[in-house]
Amino acid sequence: MFSPDTYAARRAALAEAVPGGLIVLLGNETMPMNYAANPYPFRQDGSFRYYAGADAPGLALTLDADSGEATFYGREATIEDRVWDGERPSVAERAAAAGISSTAPPDALTGVVAAARQAGRVVHVLPPYRAAQRSRLAGLLGVAPEAVAPSDVLTDAVIAQRLVKTPQEIAEIEHAVGLADEMHRTAMWMAQPGRTEFEVAAAIESAATSRGSYLSFPAIVTVRGEVPHHRAGSHTLEEGELLLHDAGCVAPNSGYASDVTRVSPVGGAFSERQRAIYDLVLEAQEACIDGCAPGASFRDLHDLASRTLAAGLVDLGLLRGDVDELVAAGAHTLFFHHGLGHPLGLDVHDLEGLGEDRVGYADEATRSTQFGTKFLRFARELRPGYVMTVEPGLYFNATLIDLWHSEGRYADAVDYDEARKWVGFGGVRIEDDVLITDDGHRVLGPPIPKRPEDVEAVVQGGA
Amino acid sequence: MFSPDTYAARRAALAEAVPGGLIVLLGNETMPMNYAANPYPFRQDGSFRYYAGADAPGLALTLDADSGEATFYGREATIEDRVWDGERPSVAERAAAAGISSTAPPDALTGVVAAARQAGRVVHVLPPYRAAQRSRLAGLLGVAPEAVAPSDVLTDAVIAQRLVKTPQEIAEIEHAVGLADEMHRTAMWMAQPGRTEFEVAAAIESAATSRGSYLSFPAIVTVRGEVPHHRAGSHTLEEGELLLHDAGCVAPNSGYASDVTRVSPVGGAFSERQRAIYDLVLEAQEACIDGCAPGASFRDLHDLASRTLAAGLVDLGLLRGDVDELVAAGAHTLFFHHGLGHPLGLDVHDLEGLGEDRVGYADEATRSTQFGTKFLRFARELRPGYVMTVEPGLYFNATLIDLWHSEGRYADAVDYDEARKWVGFGGVRIEDDVLITDDGHRVLGPPIPKRPEDVEAVVQGGA
Repeated sequence: MFSPDTYAARRAALAEAVPGGLIVLLGNETMPMNYAANPYPFRQDGSFRYYAGADAPGLALTLDADSGEATFYGREATIEDRVWDGERPSVAERAAAAGISSTAPPDALTGVVAAARQAGRVVHVLPPYRAAQRSRLAGLLGVAPEAVAPSDVLTDAVIAQRLVKTPQEIAEIEHAVGLADEMHRTAMWMAQPGRTEFEVAAAIESAATSRGSYLSFPAIVTVRGEVPHHRAGSHTLEEGELLLHDAGCVAPNSGYASDVTRVSPVGGAFSERQRAIYDLVLEAQEACIDGCAPGASFRDLHDLASRTLAAGLVDLGLLRGDVDELVAAGAHTLFFHHGLGHPLGLDVHDLEGLGEDRVGYADEATRSTQFGTKFLRFARELRPGYVMTVEPGLYFNATLIDLWHSEGRYADAVDYDEARKWVGFGGVRIEDDVLITDDGHRVLGPPIPKRPEDVEAVVQGGA
Repeated sequence: MFSPDTYAARRAALAEAVPGGLIVLLGNETMPMNYAANPYPFRQDGSFRYYAGADAPGLALTLDADSGEATFYGREATIEDRVWDGERPSVAERAAAAGISSTAPPDALTGVVAAARQAGRVVHVLPPYRAAQRSRLAGLLGVAPEAVAPSDVLTDAVIAQRLVKTPQEIAEIEHAVGLADEMHRTAMWMAQPGRTEFEVAAAIESAATSRGSYLSFPAIVTVRGEVPHHRAGSHTLEEGELLLHDAGCVAPNSGYASDVTRVSPVGGAFSERQRAIYDLVLEAQEACIDGCAPGASFRDLHDLASRTLAAGLVDLGLLRGDVDELVAAGAHTLFFHHGLGHPLGLDVHDLEGLGEDRVGYADEATRSTQFGTKFLRFARELRPGYVMTVEPGLYFNATLIDLWHSEGRYADAVDYDEARKWVGFGGVRIEDDVLITDDGHRVLGPPIPKRPEDVEAVVQGGA
């Protein structure tokens, strides 16, 4: 995707950051659904793709952190591969595309790692997130699967490097946000009474796949927006419902992801109550976007969202008391029970496979133990080149309202009688993808309708 | 999906077929794409679903082959699960839906298996097809992952039972074929100059997902039909091309699959050359469908397809010689290099995760070593209740033609100069899903346009 020099420069920086030893990066394998010949769509490992480029199964990379030499491991196509799957680049061609001249078959990796270990060299591997990776690493390292020990120094170096996006990477994310614009406009057009959630979800996905892209995560398309991970169902939309659509896709040639959320009023007009919540979430989102800048703490921005939302909930009579005290106590988490956002890149929750705490907290921050706030995936200081989602939300979740009410939690702070009146409202989340620039921030991609009147206009245009 | 009694009866039959010991069936787990919180869409293990019903991750079943007692293992939803993913049935409710009254948490499985082993009982497990299954079984059985030994008696009993479909199961497959009818008609409508393969593939998938279904395997939608596993690409369709679409989906509530292939003439009219090949493949397919009956050998039907196709290829001047001799030598495999079909059920290649040879050959047949013919997945005698795909094809694959020509293979039998004139033609495959009845067969589902004039009419209707 990028130039061979780009990959070479990335590897040189990584070798520089790791004080000696042999770095081993495994590409992903295909994953069977119910038998080997019917695998899930292939998804390459983010770090392998970042340093070695190739988007195909069965590959690996070694990088000598002392000499900087790289070797690319892969299997040549057999005649049966060529007949059944079509012609594909040779291993040498794939390696050359990433600026690597040394190649070897996959089996050679075992000997290379064994030789490094026998020579007393450190072998650096990343944390596995799939059972097949763990098993392969265990075999290479000669340990039991549960004893595979990832290299902290390698992991931290990869995180530090991949978190900061170059202009080329930013352009790819913007391309994916552009496709997400089509997806969310499609959802708005489709937010009409009589349509099912399934139909809207199918149309959203088709807006991506018809352009050669694919979803970066299974789309959330539901009037049950108060259940954050609710997928589409057979529900038929009714006038006046709120349809939440949280969906993104990838830039087709590079795999960089987008992740955007919008909420459409079914039939084209927000009710007064819906506007009250929508406007409040939008106010919080815009305040947090405004706060995105180098040096700002993402934890502080999360707290800004919490305070903004809590203040509005007090005005609406759902919470009672001093806003700072409410947020410190966590009463607002009854209605806002997830984090403000996460890094975005080749992975949707970028780099999360390397450890959520390592990526999002490191030595800079400590994870909250408060319900809701503890789900914040990233709490560190922002730096130029970071790309973050900013996605506050408000939810009226009957399960949580009933439970906390029955437990007497926040009995002074929450007006449960009032809260119960909002059950059935659903939820509102508004999410954009934001680049941290040298002097502030930039919302990536084209403007995706977000002001309530703009969303209404698009919905009305689809009727 | 089915009644509790249905699942209980299936388990009783299985316990009867296995001579004592403890049967352990693992349900599937979620599979991470690039990190745990972004899994692929969940796909349940076919055998677990067949005997325990539930379509959710993290479950297991034990069945005592001596006493017939079953225990259902699962984890109750936490408050966080309930808030984030919505309310879900309790473990006892899921178990009861499958006629099981005994439940336990997943961790209890370890102790149950250990106790059985200590008591000297045989613990029967199925062959794993995912690394995570293998790892879990290794832990349960106290052996290294590579030493997990599946139970042949259990595997064969499951195969024998699942191969024979009940009327309820057949109704579900027919429902999935009905959705495939929508998918393939959509592809025919879309087979117009100026459309891309991506657009047609997206529309096919949407035809399934908008109805609450999903693809049973990644769809093949391409003018490069000569590459059997070619997926959709950015190619823009041109008048006169052949668009091959091989796609199926599942019945939404049960997971039973369909698998259908059609070929559309882009723009609406087959050329004379295209008709020659299309008619020949259709003749072979209909002859094989006609031959589907209890007692017929699927290997013999494959050979019937081969002879029919070879005879036509002789008429077209692509092959030379006696048809039986050509087929015995394998010259026809230059143009027909896959098997006639496979069983269909909860898995698209039904039961293939339990071992392709065990399912398709058993003690009844021996796999051919001939290129092409060796890819036949099922060679046994057909029995009432089997559902098979019947899918002969003809392909003009430049890679294979060039290679065999350069090697001098079948130099007397193949007119390579003539064959080269067909490079660029693509490929034709025609596939239906066929039930073996007590006295013959029945093509499942509604009639999906197949006669060339019927396909042309649908394509023309979309212009």
